[in-house]
Amino acid sequence: MFKITFIGLGNMGLPMAQNLINAGNQVKVYNRSIEKAKNLTGNFKVCSSIKEACTGQEIVITMLSEDDILYQICDGDDGLLNNMESEAIHISMSTISPDTSRDLYKKHQQKKQHYLSSPVFGRPNAAADAKLFICTSGDDAIKQKVKPILELMGQAVYDFGTDAGAANVVKLTGNFMIMASMETMAEAFTLAEKQGLNREQVANFFGETVFNAPIYKNYGSLIAKKQYQPVGFKASLGFKDARLASKMALDAEMPAPLLNLVYNRLLSALANGNKDSDWVEGISGGVSKDAGI
Amino acid sequence: MFKITFIGLGNMGLPMAQNLINAGNQVKVYNRSIEKAKNLTGNFKVCSSIKEACTGQEIVITMLSEDDILYQICDGDDGLLNNMESEAIHISMSTISPDTSRDLYKKHQQKKQHYLSSPVFGRPNAAADAKLFICTSGDDAIKQKVKPILELMGQAVYDFGTDAGAANVVKLTGNFMIMASMETMAEAFTLAEKQGLNREQVANFFGETVFNAPIYKNYGSLIAKKQYQPVGFKASLGFKDARLASKMALDAEMPAPLLNLVYNRLLSALANGNKDSDWVEGISGGVSKDAGI
Amino acid sequence: MFKITFIGLGNMGLPMAQNLINAGNQVKVYNRSIEKAKNLTGNFKVCSSIKEACTGQEIVITMLSEDDILYQICDGDDGLLNNMESEAIHISMSTISPDTSRDLYKKHQQKKQHYLSSPVFGRPNAAADAKLFICTSGDDAIKQKVKPILELMGQAVYDFGTDAGAANVVKLTGNFMIMASMETMAEAFTLAEKQGLNREQVANFFGETVFNAPIYKNYGSLIAKKQYQPVGFKASLGFKDARLASKMALDAEMPAPLLNLVYNRLLSALANGNKDSDWVEGISGGVSKDAGI
Amino acid sequence: MFKITFIGLGNMGLPMAQNLINAGNQVKVYNRSIEKAKNLTGNFKVCSSIKEACTGQEIVITMLSEDDILYQICDGDDGLLNNMESEAIHISMSTISPDTSRDLYKKHQQKKQHYLSSPVFGRPNAAADAKLFICTSGDDAIKQKVKPILELMGQAVYDFGTDAGAANVVKLTGNFMIMASMETMAEAFTLAEKQGLNREQVANFFGETVFNAPIYKNYGSLIAKKQYQPVGFKASLGFKDARLASKMALDAEMPAPLLNLVYNRLLSALANGNKDSDWVEGISGGVSKDAGI
Repeated sequence: MFKITFIGLGNMGLPMAQNLINAGNQVKVYNRSIEKAKNLTGNFKVCSSIKEACTGQEIVITMLSEDDILYQICDGDDGLLNNMESEAIHISMSTISPDTSRDLYKKHQQKKQHYLSSPVFGRPNAAADAKLFICTSGDDAIKQKVKPILELMGQAVYDFGTDAGAANVVKLTGNFMIMASMETMAEAFTLAEKQGLNREQVANFFGETVFNAPIYKNYGSLIAKKQYQPVGFKASLGFKDARLASKMALDAEMPAPLLNLVYNRLLSALANGNKDSDWVEGISGGVSKDAGI
Repeated sequence: MFKITFIGLGNMGLPMAQNLINAGNQVKVYNRSIEKAKNLTGNFKVCSSIKEACTGQEIVITMLSEDDILYQICDGDDGLLNNMESEAIHISMSTISPDTSRDLYKKHQQKKQHYLSSPVFGRPNAAADAKLFICTSGDDAIKQKVKPILELMGQAVYDFGTDAGAANVVKLTGNFMIMASMETMAEAFTLAEKQGLNREQVANFFGETVFNAPIYKNYGSLIAKKQYQPVGFKASLGFKDARLASKMALDAEMPAPLLNLVYNRLLSALANGNKDSDWVEGISGGVSKDAGI
Repeated sequence: MFKITFIGLGNMGLPMAQNLINAGNQVKVYNRSIEKAKNLTGNFKVCSSIKEACTGQEIVITMLSEDDILYQICDGDDGLLNNMESEAIHISMSTISPDTSRDLYKKHQQKKQHYLSSPVFGRPNAAADAKLFICTSGDDAIKQKVKPILELMGQAVYDFGTDAGAANVVKLTGNFMIMASMETMAEAFTLAEKQGLNREQVANFFGETVFNAPIYKNYGSLIAKKQYQPVGFKASLGFKDARLASKMALDAEMPAPLLNLVYNRLLSALANGNKDSDWVEGISGGVSKDAGI
Repeated sequence: MFKITFIGLGNMGLPMAQNLINAGNQVKVYNRSIEKAKNLTGNFKVCSSIKEACTGQEIVITMLSEDDILYQICDGDDGLLNNMESEAIHISMSTISPDTSRDLYKKHQQKKQHYLSSPVFGRPNAAADAKLFICTSGDDAIKQKVKPILELMGQAVYDFGTDAGAANVVKLTGNFMIMASMETMAEAFTLAEKQGLNREQVANFFGETVFNAPIYKNYGSLIAKKQYQPVGFKASLGFKDARLASKMALDAEMPAPLLNLVYNRLLSALANGNKDSDWVEGISGGVSKDAGI
């Protein structure tokens, strides 16, 4: 059993923390709006400052919505860097830029602490079922040490080497691929619809045959039905990922026209006041609007 | 058992015809280069004219590379329309435009013959194993009648209604989706590579997790390894499908920017003299070239 | 003075025919809706059939909205091909595909008639002022012969050689360039507006300095003001030109992503029921909609 | 006459400084590689530190290649902010981000100094002839005061209001328009070439008629001839501007697909090791490569 602090009790963080509590770890939690902790059950401690949350803990897990918020949690007098114990490990599970990971890796090192990137694939129900896919990168000894913890949250852990940013590259690349798949399906089903076919029948066919992957089945059904409620993942968060992926492409000197395309779909959603709509609507709704349906 | 004529003994047609022969049907075959028939085994008859091939047959199957060639087979004194028996059924399995199907449906009807669209998904080895996915559309009574024949060639038959063009819409839409997936993977893996990761490791991860569909596993491996030999499907044939899909989008008044993107990748391959290279190279190689790797 | 027949009394054809009449030529006119001829003044003859219009004439000028209509005028018992005098010259001034010109060139040749491509740049007021720019291609002797006629309609005649399609290539290429300029200005002015600047001030600056060409001044003013009324040139006609240019690019094996972009803007206008709106609105309005303004 | 310091003696800065010297101002110059000053003639003083350059001067003009370098010149103990006289004016003529201008405006204000944005349009020969177009924005009193100085370098000064960033928005927007025009011409001339026409004849026609602006004449000639030597403006600098314009579009929440297109052309040039080639080659050469010519 480990002494673990969990910071960030959003849609994803909450079930992940719950799984750690259920397994009998000594868990402290911290969240800006601390009422979120009321949704947790079992034996855990709610902290009102980061200092309190970190003191005496071996592991600190962060699951936050963006780079800036992670920096706010890390920096400052009450931040992780100044308050984590020596040799303690920061497991960073948020979807952030690889450069942020590379930077925090160094800063923790200077404080004789450790930083491990461990972003995840999966939606809240997969988090609740401990079925996440977890990508990890950083120091091998640290990976070895925290593996039992990650396995409490995911069905498999994939190791992408020692570059702290590598796992983030995989995560952002994957989110680009998901958005590109949405554009693919939206154009495909719209084309079929405008040629007189039934979108759902077409989506079902592809989901059962050549494209029988969860992404195509699940998003395919939403796109075919133009069902954009309830909101699973906000357009603003999808755009954030497209923006971070574009930054990676710029840094790597790589033209990526399909990335530009989905970036623009979501940027248009934001520009039209729909940042809180679902990212599926941002992309699929854009294709529909262009096609006049 | 049926009296079946099979026209078009290419990479796909050959194993499909073989399965019909193996099942004990009375099969006649016709091909422009008739030596191809030497690759068939068992009990069948080679014909030297379409007239000879059609006479006395209940079913004529065509599996050809493009609309123009299908029209050459159908029209003229020695064509299907003038030589098929009354009430005989033309099962059109080529990847062609929906408008061609709609047109041939009417022309056969005027001759008191039948036309059924039945394009397929799958590569030659799937054809050999009778594991094709077959989409079909046209008259319900005809579908009912030929179902046992189609099932000798495929693992499942999907019915898209009575519009003769509908199954072709699905086939072209699917090929667009495959090309879009190639662009997706090529941009994703190139981005990962230029950020310092191993393409194959990234491809394997996605093929095992969120994108665990055959398309992503098989093409993903080729794209990750930049392995473009042997040629499985020519860039010129891929472009033909992108062109037919663009024509459908035009007719349906539908902007399709991702379709434009893959269309341009393959058109560029043609413009650079690589029409006989693999379509994977056309798309993935284009992404690499833009990225300077 | 010449015996000239003018077919096609639309916004452009009417003032062009008027200039020929004014110069003292013996002009016959033909139009599907013959009331249009009431807008002409002076000495001319209205014909009720193409046969009547062609008989005894040295020159037949066509100024029509699209390839199909030109073919209807040329083909059939009452068409130009069957009714023009031997050695008579068909001056084709419509915006059509180069392949249509190449085809009609041959067909007229077979009838011992002549075909000359002579499409024009300029709007109706330029036509009225005989200020059109005229591109021409075809047989040199014919160009020589009709030059005085063309000069009655335009300020300058540009010779693009003997390929009958060449002048049409230039015309369609130019219309692509105009549409591309609209997209350029629409993105530029929208970017400036969303950064807090005044669109019109920005448009004026560029129109007076580095982009001081009529296209940028005139369309720039409309785009800056988002002034899309009255309709000068319909979105459906603009799309027709984008479509013909795309066909040229396909035939020439040339990827043209900027052409795809303006093609999609106008196709989206059509898909949304705005085929009769101005092409400026189709492009500029699309940029605005994406940007949420 | 004014006491003016000129910082940045590149291709543009050198002739601009020379014009100020020629007019009899008391000019000090500073440049990282100070040998550049040997190209100046007349009465001026070369300084070896920014502190020396600023002391006692009313006006400091900067003409540098990018934001980072401008910040290096402004910040630090030897920077403009710590060494310019009280009430002295920093005229910032570089092509930089509007946000950099807005930031420096405030920082100078805190030091009781003034900041005025004054970026320019025109190439080195226009700078030598004092024919630049100068855009300016910032405090009105400051504009009034420095107007005689700006007029020594340009043929006209355009006022874009009091937002220090506004003139930079115009400059970056204009450079986007120039790049978009290159893409327009490159696609147009390539299409014409592949249809059998002569690129130069086509370019001349448009440059004399509907597109008779300097941009189309000058760049049109280079693009038509595929003449990319000598290098007038590097691909890396063009890309910098495309990148800054993209950042503006992101901040303003504006999808800009044509901007993406030219951005990718130049990024591909960089990725292929051609950062020092001409930006015209980056764009026009990319179109040619895609088209196989």
